[in-house]
Amino acid sequence: MGICALSQITMKTAIFGLGSMGFGIAKSVLKSGAIVNGYDVNKKAEEQFVAEGGQSEPIDSIVAELNSAVLVVLNAAQTEDVLFGDNGIVPKLPAGAVVIACATVSPAFARDMESRCLEHDVLYLDAPISGGSKKAAEGALSVMASGTQNAFDAARPTLNAMAETVFELGDGAGSGSAMKSVNQLLAGVHIAAMAEAITFGITQGVQPEKFLQVISQCAGTSWMLENRAPHIIDGDYTPHSAVNIWLKDLGIVLDIAQTANFDAPVTQSALDQYKSAAQMGLGQEDDAAVAKVYARQAGLTLPGE
Amino acid sequence: MGICALSQITMKTAIFGLGSMGFGIAKSVLKSGAIVNGYDVNKKAEEQFVAEGGQSEPIDSIVAELNSAVLVVLNAAQTEDVLFGDNGIVPKLPAGAVVIACATVSPAFARDMESRCLEHDVLYLDAPISGGSKKAAEGALSVMASGTQNAFDAARPTLNAMAETVFELGDGAGSGSAMKSVNQLLAGVHIAAMAEAITFGITQGVQPEKFLQVISQCAGTSWMLENRAPHIIDGDYTPHSAVNIWLKDLGIVLDIAQTANFDAPVTQSALDQYKSAAQMGLGQEDDAAVAKVYARQAGLTLPGE
Repeated sequence: MGICALSQITMKTAIFGLGSMGFGIAKSVLKSGAIVNGYDVNKKAEEQFVAEGGQSEPIDSIVAELNSAVLVVLNAAQTEDVLFGDNGIVPKLPAGAVVIACATVSPAFARDMESRCLEHDVLYLDAPISGGSKKAAEGALSVMASGTQNAFDAARPTLNAMAETVFELGDGAGSGSAMKSVNQLLAGVHIAAMAEAITFGITQGVQPEKFLQVISQCAGTSWMLENRAPHIIDGDYTPHSAVNIWLKDLGIVLDIAQTANFDAPVTQSALDQYKSAAQMGLGQEDDAAVAKVYARQAGLTLPGE
Repeated sequence: MGICALSQITMKTAIFGLGSMGFGIAKSVLKSGAIVNGYDVNKKAEEQFVAEGGQSEPIDSIVAELNSAVLVVLNAAQTEDVLFGDNGIVPKLPAGAVVIACATVSPAFARDMESRCLEHDVLYLDAPISGGSKKAAEGALSVMASGTQNAFDAARPTLNAMAETVFELGDGAGSGSAMKSVNQLLAGVHIAAMAEAITFGITQGVQPEKFLQVISQCAGTSWMLENRAPHIIDGDYTPHSAVNIWLKDLGIVLDIAQTANFDAPVTQSALDQYKSAAQMGLGQEDDAAVAKVYARQAGLTLPGE
């Protein structure tokens, strides 16, 4: 035990993006004993993180000492900005540090970031996440990861702190993001299908509670149905994951598909429903609010309305 | 025990439709100790049932003694024909016998059948089934049932023999069929979404085996994905449930939706993919063959091809 303790090195990590996912990851890594600096454009989130035991020192004062940087930002543009923008961290990170990139991006973008990081002797782990804000707070996310063995080795202490399951999907960036886009296609379609089915059921006299009770035990069930139908039943659209996330993520899926000359009509039909929800002003509501698109079209009343 | 044995009456049941579901139901009811006559337009199925211990006596010689008649036919037209066609059974059934109607039909059709049966003092249980041919053979189906208390009481011995779970959804016909159509909407969409996702994944280097291994543990999973993706991975399109079933069932869903002025665009997009599969000559293959529509469009090779 004594020798192990002596050989332990305190990890230094920075988390970029303290939204619902990033804040939970930052807290989980903090709990593991690492020194964690958290950053967000929303200064209140940084203050909250400091209040809960984290740090938010000026990035230039700590970047050269980091072992890892976890990016939990919205998209590819924000990822690139943190890494290579005006005050990008990659040129200032020490050799051997690892970037753990969690945003949903295209496989091609992930491969590009990996090669640009390597030019600075910085490792890159393509590491999109799945599991929602509750699992993020518990350090129990799933990570769809790909990267070099060196990148996995350098990322391991941070991954262990944030994730329950790490899928190791390949020895270079891209495979993680590919699997994430496949998962998002399905998850986004399944929420829209659930919304379509629960409202269709209402037109036929099927009560939403009964819908969940029966369908969750039948062949029509999905993980998303069991997770999101309760929001509709409770009339609670507090955004665990917002409608706007699916405009972004299904948009990424369809961009990738187009590049591959692949038609994804079911995904397109689901995206159209999220777009209609956003046009109704529901973009910031929980994604289960896509049910309101159907309810308005058919003149139905949802629970809580 | 002796008194119970003396009070037992041997149930007499007829099963109409000895396809993959009906044959399993017929065998399950037979195992329960009932006298079971099985009927199908395919005489080989009747012969097979007799070879396995069942009967297939001329219907007119046994109809007046039946306690229950289970209809496991394709659709509303066949249901109506068995009940009220040229040689329809309802006018010949004894008072208090129960029709257990398992085909996927509209709620309005189920209500109509119930009231027409009642004119002949025949009970009607709206009883669509879920679970596939394997569960049918095991007597372990789920039944989405609605009907009068008398109909449930009369149907109970037969239901117990064929089902593991009986959802009691209301005191009149219609509610069972409504729930079934909701389930079929979801199940049909989920198979098409799985096919879209697994083939999209192939364009991004995601191997089908890896797709199943990872996604089945993530938010993108569904019951249908876990059940049908293995067919694609194995390249085995032996029809457990055929493409043509979804042309029928999603068509019924959209017919009901139209009557309710309800738009179901995700369902429509899935149905269009099954139509494309049928146009490619795949109507009799397992429904997972809808993946071939995507593969052909994008020039991909599926496992086993």
